[in-house]
Amino acid sequence: MNTTKTHETIRILGIDPGLRVTGFGIIDRNGQKLAYVSSGCIKTDDSLSLPERIKTILDGIAEVVDAHRPQQAAVEKVFVNVNPQSTLLLGQARGAAIAALVGRGLPVAEYTALQVKQAVVGHGKAAKEQVQAMVVRLLSLSGAPSADAADALAVAISHAHGGQGLGALATKGFRVKNGRLV
Amino acid sequence: MNTTKTHETIRILGIDPGLRVTGFGIIDRNGQKLAYVSSGCIKTDDSLSLPERIKTILDGIAEVVDAHRPQQAAVEKVFVNVNPQSTLLLGQARGAAIAALVGRGLPVAEYTALQVKQAVVGHGKAAKEQVQAMVVRLLSLSGAPSADAADALAVAISHAHGGQGLGALATKGFRVKNGRLV
Repeated sequence: MNTTKTHETIRILGIDPGLRVTGFGIIDRNGQKLAYVSSGCIKTDDSLSLPERIKTILDGIAEVVDAHRPQQAAVEKVFVNVNPQSTLLLGQARGAAIAALVGRGLPVAEYTALQVKQAVVGHGKAAKEQVQAMVVRLLSLSGAPSADAADALAVAISHAHGGQGLGALATKGFRVKNGRLV
Repeated sequence: MNTTKTHETIRILGIDPGLRVTGFGIIDRNGQKLAYVSSGCIKTDDSLSLPERIKTILDGIAEVVDAHRPQQAAVEKVFVNVNPQSTLLLGQARGAAIAALVGRGLPVAEYTALQVKQAVVGHGKAAKEQVQAMVVRLLSLSGAPSADAADALAVAISHAHGGQGLGALATKGFRVKNGRLV
């Protein structure tokens, strides 16, 4: 009788949406283990019309999904900007990104920047650089990914933790002190 | 030798985007003649998550495109709301609608509410009811479509006029006086 507990690997695609740059990051979660798969960003040409830029985002995400076949997706929640016009543009980019994901049949979870910081760094006041450094560490990356890709990987990590925050990392042998791994 | 000038029929899908209700209207344009094809609206359940509501919009537009096979699409430009959160939600709905259209290979044009009023009524200060009444008249409808469907048909009519406004209607036997057809 085999009593060994085995975990199924879940592939997660994280998205940090934006009209100019949409970051993406893919990780595999197996139990408490996380493994880096891929990351990068989709850039749109701001000389193109909005529908053409939306098509770039749509095609870019479709390409990533087709290449890596994630089973779940997570998208960062965006906040209203001081500039209402920017808020509208960002909203449209995010709507297009979510449409690309649900159009490929992926379940989409949403996380606020606060939830991402809490899940990745352990507290909601972490600086962007701290989040990026933790992404490098948690995924054992040899180099730092671009800021947009790192943010997208952080969203994927948040989803992998299932909202459990750094508590979920205890089994990995990390210890958290003052919001930093020690 | 046949010198008769013939026109190709172009089928146009107009969209009035919204998170709760997305109106759609389809017309055929043949030369200066416009013919009503179909109209209606896609409603999303506000108890669902944003990704699920976006999927409803995406699936609804895909269904309309598959059923009627329009060759061109036009989407009303939306404006920033006094409530930034509403602006963000509307932006996401509009981004999803455009994604649905470009995802089906449709070229997407954009028109402001001002352009739609000028194209359909002849001046930019027209009331919503005037626009709706003109849609009924221009398309020879027997009854009034819902407000969202009428707005979407108005966007399709604007696109059919190619920005020529009411001047393009002269050949239909209408005369414009003080922004009203007489």
